[in-house]
Amino acid sequence: MAGTIPVSPLAPASFPELPVVAGATFAATAAGVKYQGRTDVMLALLQPGTTMAGVFTRSATRSANVLDCQAKIGADSDAGAAIIVNSGNSNAFTGKAGEGSVAAICAAVAAETGLPEERVFTSSTGVIGERLPHDRITSKIAELAATQEAGALEAAAQAIMTTDTFAKGSTTTVEIDGTPVTIAGIAKGSGMVAPDMATMLVYIFTDAQASRPALQALLSGHTDQTFNNITVDSDTSTSDTLLLAATGATGVNVDGNAAFAEALHQVMLDLAHQVVRDGEGATKFVEVQVTGAATDADARTHAMAIANSPLIKTAVAGEDPNWGRVVMAIGKSGAAADRDLLTIRFGDILVAEKGWVAASYTEEAGAAYMKAQDLVIAVDLGLGDGASTAWTCDLTHGYITINADYRS
Amino acid sequence: MAGTIPVSPLAPASFPELPVVAGATFAATAAGVKYQGRTDVMLALLQPGTTMAGVFTRSATRSANVLDCQAKIGADSDAGAAIIVNSGNSNAFTGKAGEGSVAAICAAVAAETGLPEERVFTSSTGVIGERLPHDRITSKIAELAATQEAGALEAAAQAIMTTDTFAKGSTTTVEIDGTPVTIAGIAKGSGMVAPDMATMLVYIFTDAQASRPALQALLSGHTDQTFNNITVDSDTSTSDTLLLAATGATGVNVDGNAAFAEALHQVMLDLAHQVVRDGEGATKFVEVQVTGAATDADARTHAMAIANSPLIKTAVAGEDPNWGRVVMAIGKSGAAADRDLLTIRFGDILVAEKGWVAASYTEEAGAAYMKAQDLVIAVDLGLGDGASTAWTCDLTHGYITINADYRS
Repeated sequence: MAGTIPVSPLAPASFPELPVVAGATFAATAAGVKYQGRTDVMLALLQPGTTMAGVFTRSATRSANVLDCQAKIGADSDAGAAIIVNSGNSNAFTGKAGEGSVAAICAAVAAETGLPEERVFTSSTGVIGERLPHDRITSKIAELAATQEAGALEAAAQAIMTTDTFAKGSTTTVEIDGTPVTIAGIAKGSGMVAPDMATMLVYIFTDAQASRPALQALLSGHTDQTFNNITVDSDTSTSDTLLLAATGATGVNVDGNAAFAEALHQVMLDLAHQVVRDGEGATKFVEVQVTGAATDADARTHAMAIANSPLIKTAVAGEDPNWGRVVMAIGKSGAAADRDLLTIRFGDILVAEKGWVAASYTEEAGAAYMKAQDLVIAVDLGLGDGASTAWTCDLTHGYITINADYRS
Repeated sequence: MAGTIPVSPLAPASFPELPVVAGATFAATAAGVKYQGRTDVMLALLQPGTTMAGVFTRSATRSANVLDCQAKIGADSDAGAAIIVNSGNSNAFTGKAGEGSVAAICAAVAAETGLPEERVFTSSTGVIGERLPHDRITSKIAELAATQEAGALEAAAQAIMTTDTFAKGSTTTVEIDGTPVTIAGIAKGSGMVAPDMATMLVYIFTDAQASRPALQALLSGHTDQTFNNITVDSDTSTSDTLLLAATGATGVNVDGNAAFAEALHQVMLDLAHQVVRDGEGATKFVEVQVTGAATDADARTHAMAIANSPLIKTAVAGEDPNWGRVVMAIGKSGAAADRDLLTIRFGDILVAEKGWVAASYTEEAGAAYMKAQDLVIAVDLGLGDGASTAWTCDLTHGYITINADYRS
């Protein structure tokens, strides 16, 4: 399944060199959940004292794994933690059997590692509506526990891929009080082949020390500026999961630390962009900048309306500087707008202002700009100080081919 | 422009025979607004005593024509009325010039017909952001007034087409108190070629007599069950307009009459379905039936989430019975749902129930069903009595070709 689609033209040149995150180890193996000839399960073990935070899909039909993680994420513990993720089967819409699979995996990890079950977090991604063959996973847990390595985060990134065309990783280091603090994360999404869905899974690890409420607040706040502002096709997975583990190995407390917050934001934004760059059929990466809205919430509504509009996304695919469709998307978004106060720019090119095309604008300049691979569509509403940025890709024949022509 | 795209495979076999609506006359002509070699302006004249009702786009960037119609529609008058519509240029996002064009057209129609300007309703559809050459229209108004015919509604339907692949008309007659009352309507939408948008224009005429508040309430209520429940690609035009004119020529008052209400609903639903059947690239027509929701509003939210989902629309295009994507759309819609109470049917085939695939379901049966041209996706939420139905088409390579490959 993976490998049948060419690597996205928007992929980074290479997977980044991910550093060791003290207090975290990883292993991956091939359990044969569905795929053959590749790894499909990863286990991360976090040392005692690790603080966990998480953000999950808002879907009303979320998977058994997500429900289980949500029930566990709010509790404090000094016991360490485990994250176990399989690809190939999402364990979603599998009725009561799905809950049984999660319980079986958690019990097996707990038995092998000595962790309490409530500190084992699971994710599953892949085909939905098929019972998860969890025995294939539990039979590999002893091996996964025995082969843990601090340097195996890239292997973990590869094991969680479904129809991603490239593995996604990001890292940064920030010096706090003279001590280097490391953040490293991996993600999967949103390559989809029927009947998979655009499940986005993200796991970020740091050797900083943090209190749970502070870490959770930081993660939730950053999510609203990163992963919640990306879209490939407006559809939402039943399994989206983002977990952040702070092992505390450096002893550097980062509660309220601005430098750490900025570093975490940077890693999250990089991973979010990589997810968009692997959008199905994507050939262009688009940043939508909205300013001058009545509120930040209004700005986000406008930005996502533009980023989700099929008419804009097809225009981008066709390299058509179709600013009229931007006006349309702003108009339909439901947030406040005044046609005669709008300013629209494509990159640095002033396209429209005062309710009409700009006097200086030429179709030739707009068309030339649209040939670039990375584009900026900027809208100022002229109403207030509200601002938001969203990221999307174009809508191409490749999307139709992947989602309509490939049969399950 | 029109004619370069083949007629939709979902088009009706022929345009219906539209009857005369007493009190209404029509004319169409070629003004050369943009298109050459075809009609592009229609003028409808309604006799004194005609009651007008209207529903308009909610877009915040709606066109000057829409704003003008909205300002006029709520007033009573015994003066008769005119509707003048051009294709080829939407007069949208044309700044203050757009308002001037509307005023010039209204003044010219008023001068020619003796109607007050506030009884002249205009619509424009076509390219946006280009100044409307309204002189080409006003120079034809004497001709349009002089050539009025009761039987020219089909000619009017043809003149308002932009990139529609077929003209859209519908009619019915209902006997009330022994007198036949006629309803006949025309529509355009939603064939789009860059930089046009999916403007939907609908004009319905009846020889019934009605009070303005009753007619407006009826039209608004029916719109929520017809035109507001269709979607091609979730984008909304800046020019959508629906006008209903009751000439009163039969002398039959239909205020509160259930038979008339049902007849009007039938014409509106037929025209709404024809708009979907002319969706760009459409090869399949899909009815989404949602029942068992907590409220009707929740049911509509679920139905539109399913009808708008690119993943479902591509699955339909690929004839893939991908019920997992239906679960996904319900989950993301934001309305109440319980995964374990969902029932999903494709036509008469029970696909999923109790949070899992139905025991009786086979992929073969699902795949065979999806080969039909007209499909029903039915979801029961098992929560209450809320129900709603939406209509959509599939998302195909044709949509991408029309909206990305054709350049403005």
